Amino acid sequence: MRLSSRILNGEVRAIARAMTLIENEQPEAEELLKEIFPHTGRAQIIGVTGAPGTGKSTLVDKLVLAYRRRGKSVGVVAVDPTSPFSGGAILGDRVRMQDLYLDEGVFIRSMATRGHLGGLARPTAEVVQVLDAAGKDLVFVETVGVGQDEVEVTKLADVSLVLLVPGMGDDLQAIKAGLMEIADIFVINKADRADVDQLVRGVESALSLAGRPDGWSPPIVRSVASQGQGVEELMSAIEHWFGFRRGLPAAFDRRHSAQDLILQLLRDRLLETAIGQSEIWARIQAASEEVRLRKRDPYSVVNELIDLLRLGDRIEESS
Amino acid sequence: MRLSSRILNGEVRAIARAMTLIENEQPEAEELLKEIFPHTGRAQIIGVTGAPGTGKSTLVDKLVLAYRRRGKSVGVVAVDPTSPFSGGAILGDRVRMQDLYLDEGVFIRSMATRGHLGGLARPTAEVVQVLDAAGKDLVFVETVGVGQDEVEVTKLADVSLVLLVPGMGDDLQAIKAGLMEIADIFVINKADRADVDQLVRGVESALSLAGRPDGWSPPIVRSVASQGQGVEELMSAIEHWFGFRRGLPAAFDRRHSAQDLILQLLRDRLLETAIGQSEIWARIQAASEEVRLRKRDPYSVVNELIDLLRLGDRIEESS
Repeated sequence: MRLSSRILNGEVRAIARAMTLIENEQPEAEELLKEIFPHTGRAQIIGVTGAPGTGKSTLVDKLVLAYRRRGKSVGVVAVDPTSPFSGGAILGDRVRMQDLYLDEGVFIRSMATRGHLGGLARPTAEVVQVLDAAGKDLVFVETVGVGQDEVEVTKLADVSLVLLVPGMGDDLQAIKAGLMEIADIFVINKADRADVDQLVRGVESALSLAGRPDGWSPPIVRSVASQGQGVEELMSAIEHWFGFRRGLPAAFDRRHSAQDLILQLLRDRLLETAIGQSEIWARIQAASEEVRLRKRDPYSVVNELIDLLRLGDRIEESS
Repeated sequence: MRLSSRILNGEVRAIARAMTLIENEQPEAEELLKEIFPHTGRAQIIGVTGAPGTGKSTLVDKLVLAYRRRGKSVGVVAVDPTSPFSGGAILGDRVRMQDLYLDEGVFIRSMATRGHLGGLARPTAEVVQVLDAAGKDLVFVETVGVGQDEVEVTKLADVSLVLLVPGMGDDLQAIKAGLMEIADIFVINKADRADVDQLVRGVESALSLAGRPDGWSPPIVRSVASQGQGVEELMSAIEHWFGFRRGLPAAFDRRHSAQDLILQLLRDRLLETAIGQSEIWARIQAASEEVRLRKRDPYSVVNELIDLLRLGDRIEESS
């Protein structure tokens, strides 16, 4: 049976195989993604963002177990930071979630960042598409931190949870740092710590300053994920958000648009196609040395390459 | 006088103007960067990476003051996370550093992440080039977190400091999360906290597992940046690293190569040029709606666009 059919049937080994194809950028991945694309768009994507140490993975584990008890099938994609030396993943699939992993209703995958020119947004979106096509009701996407790539990944999500914990120092700085406008729901984890009220007040006051264009007031849910506290409340908050969101005009949709998908793919494909030409690659190699020695500047080099490639000259001629 | 000449003279207003041109992606920015490029490559770039709340900015402030006392001129580039709604910077230029800002020997700039297709690596590199050409001896580049974009920005640096603080929860997770191989020097800030020894041991044991290919053993410096403690030790560690680094073969150089600069620029320019053609843009618009409705998949759309653009057909014909 074709791999795509096996994925649509929800076969675990087929899902794993597809993800490996995507991660290794195998040519078969594209064919597969084409075939499954019409069957995507059904899963609810739950983004979970928080700095290392906020207990993000623990919270996701508890949410997964709770949704499983309600009969939902679940996928988890954990986006890990990279190792610039080796280019490989460091965390790997999480050992401590092995007990969930053995449960056929859950599929967990870690994503490692890759080469310097490809962000994680596209491969993560593709892995989510596989889980979506495989019939998962919910897909969690975990990201560390608040960098550009994380913001990109956030756009995949139908709901974004942002985790904060008390006592991490300049809490307000963390709150201000871009998280305010990503978060549909704030989770104050490790809420059994002493200075939790101070953090809650900080978030409340930041929220009161920055009204959202869609009119949503992000709730603040307290949790102690390691003990399962707050998980039910969080699930209610998620449900509440989905109810609110259904009533919103399309203009407020922050998610990756189809146009974003096309532009990302086009950008990657243009570069691959350009440097795949031996003439272009040879020129880049030669120019790199001149640029390193400051004999030339990279801007002139690229202008020359663009001229050489005559991008789309034919279209203008024929029209 | 030309803007580039004024930058080479180190004029503060010219530097500020150049940065605005870069941030707003003005066409004049490219001309300027071409002109100053031969005068770059002299400054020492110091990367400082740490999660929100680790006291990164406070530490940088103290280092800046200490280097100023030694007569060094200094630039600071603070890379801030983005707001996906507004696209603007949230933190802005740091108010509390205003006293440094008034000192002509220091120039501070915050970078906000921008549109979804441009990472921060290139504009940050360009802003650093301006400070470098303007004759700054040292340029600090502060980044939050450990995402893909941060790893990119790290490659700008001649030395990378990674800040950790005790009591942030799963410390080992933070350490494992890609930071081990970025850090030339670990700074354990807020080292007056109770559980500092535990964190130091964690870093030591992680370091003992992962030997670096260049043979460097990253030192662990304890600091209480808010009180200026550890700043001198850190400056010694930085000096020691630069001494070690000078003796390394070029193959161990992790910094952005000239080739990386060219490839980044080429990728951005190819997409700009492609979507700047009305025929291509019109097709993307039409296809986006079909993709949204799952009537087409984005892969076929992009393949068609690539065919239409006939990238480099002429080169092959002429050779």
